[in-house]
Amino acid sequence: MIQHLVNYVGIAVLATSGAVVGVRKGFDLFGIATLAVLSGIGGVVLRDMLLDLAPPASIQHWQDITVCLAASALTTVFAKWVIQLNQLVLVLDAVGMGFFATSGAAIAADHGASWFAAALLGVISAVAGSAMRDVVAREVPMVLGPDDMYAAPAMLGAVLYVAIDHVGHQWLAVVVGSAVATVLRLAAITFHWRLPTGPRELIMHMHDHPSREMSTSATTGRQ
Amino acid sequence: MIQHLVNYVGIAVLATSGAVVGVRKGFDLFGIATLAVLSGIGGVVLRDMLLDLAPPASIQHWQDITVCLAASALTTVFAKWVIQLNQLVLVLDAVGMGFFATSGAAIAADHGASWFAAALLGVISAVAGSAMRDVVAREVPMVLGPDDMYAAPAMLGAVLYVAIDHVGHQWLAVVVGSAVATVLRLAAITFHWRLPTGPRELIMHMHDHPSREMSTSATTGRQ
Amino acid sequence: MIQHLVNYVGIAVLATSGAVVGVRKGFDLFGIATLAVLSGIGGVVLRDMLLDLAPPASIQHWQDITVCLAASALTTVFAKWVIQLNQLVLVLDAVGMGFFATSGAAIAADHGASWFAAALLGVISAVAGSAMRDVVAREVPMVLGPDDMYAAPAMLGAVLYVAIDHVGHQWLAVVVGSAVATVLRLAAITFHWRLPTGPRELIMHMHDHPSREMSTSATTGRQ
Repeated sequence: MIQHLVNYVGIAVLATSGAVVGVRKGFDLFGIATLAVLSGIGGVVLRDMLLDLAPPASIQHWQDITVCLAASALTTVFAKWVIQLNQLVLVLDAVGMGFFATSGAAIAADHGASWFAAALLGVISAVAGSAMRDVVAREVPMVLGPDDMYAAPAMLGAVLYVAIDHVGHQWLAVVVGSAVATVLRLAAITFHWRLPTGPRELIMHMHDHPSREMSTSATTGRQ
Repeated sequence: MIQHLVNYVGIAVLATSGAVVGVRKGFDLFGIATLAVLSGIGGVVLRDMLLDLAPPASIQHWQDITVCLAASALTTVFAKWVIQLNQLVLVLDAVGMGFFATSGAAIAADHGASWFAAALLGVISAVAGSAMRDVVAREVPMVLGPDDMYAAPAMLGAVLYVAIDHVGHQWLAVVVGSAVATVLRLAAITFHWRLPTGPRELIMHMHDHPSREMSTSATTGRQ
Repeated sequence: MIQHLVNYVGIAVLATSGAVVGVRKGFDLFGIATLAVLSGIGGVVLRDMLLDLAPPASIQHWQDITVCLAASALTTVFAKWVIQLNQLVLVLDAVGMGFFATSGAAIAADHGASWFAAALLGVISAVAGSAMRDVVAREVPMVLGPDDMYAAPAMLGAVLYVAIDHVGHQWLAVVVGSAVATVLRLAAITFHWRLPTGPRELIMHMHDHPSREMSTSATTGRQ
């Protein structure tokens, strides 16, 4: 019961973040809705594809996508207010992220994934939707960049789930893993915690092409 | 018989659009061919992956990809003329889009998809290839943007297919759904119909980063 | 035994190329590691998804991803030296590419793929990871562009594998296919061999939008 509620809140908040990006990018209503659906269920659909659950539950049943479309419609109409409610959105998003990380790991473990794979698929459930949103909107995925710490709490939550599930009850693992992930995420926002980057002097600016460097600079003498 | 012909014409036209993007972007012959294949069969391959049909028919059998490669080769050699034949390409593309939307829904329904999932997978079959083409070519997907109405006709066609198939014959559902989608698409081109965007004053210009805004602006004071 | 070694070396080198891009782009440690994992196993995971092997072996077992993470950590710390060792990286990468092209085709053939699909999935195993790396890092995929010849050797290796496996021994097919692909790749680097592009006068510069041209220029009069 409560996990259904948290699930729908999490999907709705992720979908809202997608719809905001769609509005900001000037997409049309289909584009905004697509970005909302991709953000809202992209992570769990990718998890289900990796587990060969076909069709993925979020596609087979109408509820999840309907939540995304409702969130998308409300966000489009009330975009100005949604953007101003950013802090509420951030808190709800942290709750949803924690829940997806552990519930994603739980579903994976229930469908034949190893402990290693379950933890990984938990993280994928929690962060892949937002990465898809950014790639499709032609942004560098926020979850990979240095401006925010989002994936590390998801990873801690998923690993905690796997560890507790190994020695104790599944519901305890979900509750503790979700709570720790959410609290760590909120702390990261509050105290501006960031993961470090690599050596700063090696960071290139836009329109340099690092991917080409690995394959051609030695042979052409460019660096 | 006729559905095979429409299928190959649809694949060839989608592949042509991918090859044109590849030529325009300055890709090499492999890049042009890859973009043609991705545009031509990307949608149906993603549909098959979501349905767990493995390997996807377009990959297991040589015909579809061969059509893509032939279209790619002809487009590369005759690119100038292909670009000038834009209106013919648009009409053929509308026919292919309508057919993919309904045939994609039909194949999904035949492989255990719910009505809801069948309609969704029909739309994915019709539009996902062009979205993949644009993402790989580092463009904002045309199908999400406000400059063109492409996905709404596909959606109407897929929904019509599902509704008619529910009460009548499958072949009638394919014919009516495809025809309505194609006609609506051609009308949208002719009369410049567009879907609306969100509030115009919220649309950001390039190099703003809407995806970051949702996660950090409230905490850092940037807006 | 030796194929396990080549496999891990190939994964490590691909992961290194991903980590270098992550460092250069200024991603945080999670972003760098993600790009390393995506480059290192993205191709074989996509192959396994297309074959419905679930969960993909590289996700189910910890070895491959651990190799990626170790490569990512070393690359992040010693990034300056890794970039200077470019020529060694290029040679090892050519060895790994040749091996993935043939071993990918072999695994596909062993799991029900047609000869056609096996060759295609071999190429996908060898090049899709680097394409994912570039798309996520918001680059035009190097493998599609004109600056380097990477996919053609993989394709030749995969086709050779399929042909030799058809008439002779699988291990011979892997060895010959891998060796030819690797040698051709090294020759392409040494002698600056490139595949041709389409007609040069049709190549557009950045911020032109070729994907929109196909759908709207005829109706709006823009060209």
